[in-house]
Amino acid sequence: MPKELKELTKRAENYSQWFNDLVIKADLAEQSAVRGCMVIKPYGYAIWEKMQQQLDKMFKETGAQNAYFPLLIPKSFLSREAEHVEGFAKECAVVTHYRLKNSDSGAGVVVDPSARLEEELIIRPTSETIIWNTYKNWIKSWRDLPLMCNQWCNVMRWEMRTRPFLRTSEFLWQEGHTAHATKEEAVEEARKMLGVYATFAEKWMAVPVLQGVKSESEKFAGALDTYTIEAMMQDGKALQSGTSHFLGQNFAKSFDVTFLNKENKAEYVWATSWGVSTRLIGALIMTHSDDNGLVLPPKLAPIQVVIIPIAKGEEQLSAITEKLQPVISKLRESGISVKFDDSDNKRPGFKFADYELKGVPVRLVMGGRDLESNTVEIMRRDTLEKETVSLDGIAEHIIQLLDQIQDNIFEKARKYRDERVYECENYEEFKEKVKEGGFFLCHWDGTAETEAKIKEETQATIRCVPFAYEQTEGVDMVSGKPSKYRVIIARSY
Amino acid sequence: MPKELKELTKRAENYSQWFNDLVIKADLAEQSAVRGCMVIKPYGYAIWEKMQQQLDKMFKETGAQNAYFPLLIPKSFLSREAEHVEGFAKECAVVTHYRLKNSDSGAGVVVDPSARLEEELIIRPTSETIIWNTYKNWIKSWRDLPLMCNQWCNVMRWEMRTRPFLRTSEFLWQEGHTAHATKEEAVEEARKMLGVYATFAEKWMAVPVLQGVKSESEKFAGALDTYTIEAMMQDGKALQSGTSHFLGQNFAKSFDVTFLNKENKAEYVWATSWGVSTRLIGALIMTHSDDNGLVLPPKLAPIQVVIIPIAKGEEQLSAITEKLQPVISKLRESGISVKFDDSDNKRPGFKFADYELKGVPVRLVMGGRDLESNTVEIMRRDTLEKETVSLDGIAEHIIQLLDQIQDNIFEKARKYRDERVYECENYEEFKEKVKEGGFFLCHWDGTAETEAKIKEETQATIRCVPFAYEQTEGVDMVSGKPSKYRVIIARSY
Repeated sequence: MPKELKELTKRAENYSQWFNDLVIKADLAEQSAVRGCMVIKPYGYAIWEKMQQQLDKMFKETGAQNAYFPLLIPKSFLSREAEHVEGFAKECAVVTHYRLKNSDSGAGVVVDPSARLEEELIIRPTSETIIWNTYKNWIKSWRDLPLMCNQWCNVMRWEMRTRPFLRTSEFLWQEGHTAHATKEEAVEEARKMLGVYATFAEKWMAVPVLQGVKSESEKFAGALDTYTIEAMMQDGKALQSGTSHFLGQNFAKSFDVTFLNKENKAEYVWATSWGVSTRLIGALIMTHSDDNGLVLPPKLAPIQVVIIPIAKGEEQLSAITEKLQPVISKLRESGISVKFDDSDNKRPGFKFADYELKGVPVRLVMGGRDLESNTVEIMRRDTLEKETVSLDGIAEHIIQLLDQIQDNIFEKARKYRDERVYECENYEEFKEKVKEGGFFLCHWDGTAETEAKIKEETQATIRCVPFAYEQTEGVDMVSGKPSKYRVIIARSY
Repeated sequence: MPKELKELTKRAENYSQWFNDLVIKADLAEQSAVRGCMVIKPYGYAIWEKMQQQLDKMFKETGAQNAYFPLLIPKSFLSREAEHVEGFAKECAVVTHYRLKNSDSGAGVVVDPSARLEEELIIRPTSETIIWNTYKNWIKSWRDLPLMCNQWCNVMRWEMRTRPFLRTSEFLWQEGHTAHATKEEAVEEARKMLGVYATFAEKWMAVPVLQGVKSESEKFAGALDTYTIEAMMQDGKALQSGTSHFLGQNFAKSFDVTFLNKENKAEYVWATSWGVSTRLIGALIMTHSDDNGLVLPPKLAPIQVVIIPIAKGEEQLSAITEKLQPVISKLRESGISVKFDDSDNKRPGFKFADYELKGVPVRLVMGGRDLESNTVEIMRRDTLEKETVSLDGIAEHIIQLLDQIQDNIFEKARKYRDERVYECENYEEFKEKVKEGGFFLCHWDGTAETEAKIKEETQATIRCVPFAYEQTEGVDMVSGKPSKYRVIIARSY
């Protein structure tokens, strides 16, 4: 077994370390020289590109268009919406100068004190403010609505404790910002985009998610309502994987964005924003992968099929290659990404472990005996099951298998999640059980006090009020006060 | 004629104002609230997306992979390569703090003085330094080479005089960074990528370019050689549209990046970098567009065909729509982007002018008479020629026409450029003639003094030593000294 693989921590030993190891060993990302910022390596970035392609298509189908707004936001803009600045002030990277110069004392280049900005600029932690300042000029009449822009970009939130993909100071994301004539339309848009995220998570990432609405204390700074998709990792913790916000008229009022309605009266515009980030890669890794390495859903795997010939000598290699060529062609014609690895500087055993580590969904191996018998050995990464099959109809077989793997890892993750969703009525029992992870459906009295107490005593937070749950009235397990609905409580990333 | 169009400045009146007007009126971009930074509007961004798609494909065909490196660069990194920091120090946006706080005096949020960074961070003006610091850990042996990464990202160069697309403080670009075992391989890579840019410019943008190598004073800060593609705008000025740099071992030495060669000896790695930016959109606009608005090459036009029905009443509109539906389907199946505009809140005349302004290559109009005669009026944007043709075979006709337009605008631009490339031997004649624009092929003695004199006296600069020119020895027109080759001298953006 190659060294890289041997050194991968087992999930059962230390789940957190397993994740960190895997990110490095599977060549997804690494820490950079800048505190809290990662380098996304080509293999990790290839997953992000596949995600972007699909999401971008889905956004455009809803009528959203891409645009690009400035990286830097004047400090005064951020301050206009009171809750917004309160939420982001503590993690803002601030640009104060626009020039370096040679130091007079010969100490190399230094900041030029004479090049101080009149007003400091903030690297965007999110772009509501600069975008709504722009929308002011784009929106005059009801005819200009709805306005739906999205941008793919980098954002910066100065985090003190970072982890690759899950929480980094700089991250890549998309942020959609839409403007509507009515409250109803804006709420519908925010919920529609949450649905797009949920569909993407389940159908492409094979990650089951629960949709719901955040509590007051967990919502986005400046939103009236934050909708969320919550996934469960293999340690039973929740990972917030995407959010969509109904912003009401907050930003329209802060930036004075009104439109003339059909009766020719000025009204403030209604807003939403919605985003997913490179955090999705963290969700992907932590949901499916195992002690052998990554398990990638076929729909997002940069390499879907790897083919490894095992030959004795050049002649046999040529014969095997020739035999496989039509299979490779056929798969590629069907849009399948295939890697044919006949490199001779690595042993087959190393290759096997390496492609397992990298989560390639299907592996084909052809040796001398297969050549004679017109067969190939096929292994699926999700179950590690091997079988020897005929080369006749192999392409169709693989295409079906990729679908099966996609379905299987989703079902496996869903089963895992469903077995760990508990209705819970007793706080003592909750406190004990929450240590093992899981989603707890508990009655809540709706107060911030109870929420804070749970967080302090158990490190668990209210993830959301789930949409798909038949609510009945009950009693808060902590305060004993009456409760109108249950929330999902869990420890989270 | 709609107001927007009437207000477009004529090129002959004021070419510079025409460009600024057109960027705004065609909805490509606008100035943002942040000095020197633009908002790229959806229509402008759609052109950039088309460019990205094609370039990304071409890069990947050369073996480059995408990755992502941090936005922020430690100041000390920038200083390691002496020429590099010298070139960029004067335009660096500097992050000095990582937190805001509420002011004690109630003046809103202010920078928190206790959150000062130990070392200032620079928003990347280009990423050689952070990337070579990363490559140090990726490159150990000749087996790790070549290493070829590209990133699509934003960069920041604090410019004092900005113009949309041509020169903005923040811009979007791609930057490729490659590492090689030998000098020859690195030079070959740098020239290959210049070739990719030239092919893209000519085949996709329909912009003819001259390839060449920059003079010492015009090359990239930190490069040994900078290769460039230079295009000519309609005022005869040059626009540097893409550059590719042979960096020698400069960055490898600054960041101590060595590899063990096949003889197991440590050697410094050889480097290239290459980039094109949203400036390409400026080149596109200024090469083809006219006094009626944009002229877009079909291969990069967000909308390739617009179809406008002109009906008397709902019934006729239905009949026309039904008649056109198979044409629309067929075009879309062929991958043509079609907009069917049956909106009833704008007059046909307004629509005509608006799609002309936006540079849609082909316009179809169908009215009541066309319905009877099974015809359609077709207009091509490049020549504004109209003809009435039969609906039979119309899709094939349009597909051919799009190709013709692509070829025609390239040929037109090439003819324009070729007519303005002059061999010039006399400095007095040059000084007079250069005011009118054009590329001047002049002998140069190779000294910085002569170069500076020309720049000071005529505002023209040496654009490059062109590759595709049969060089002979001669006499420098300024100094009278002997010259080994001719350079292209021109005023430029």
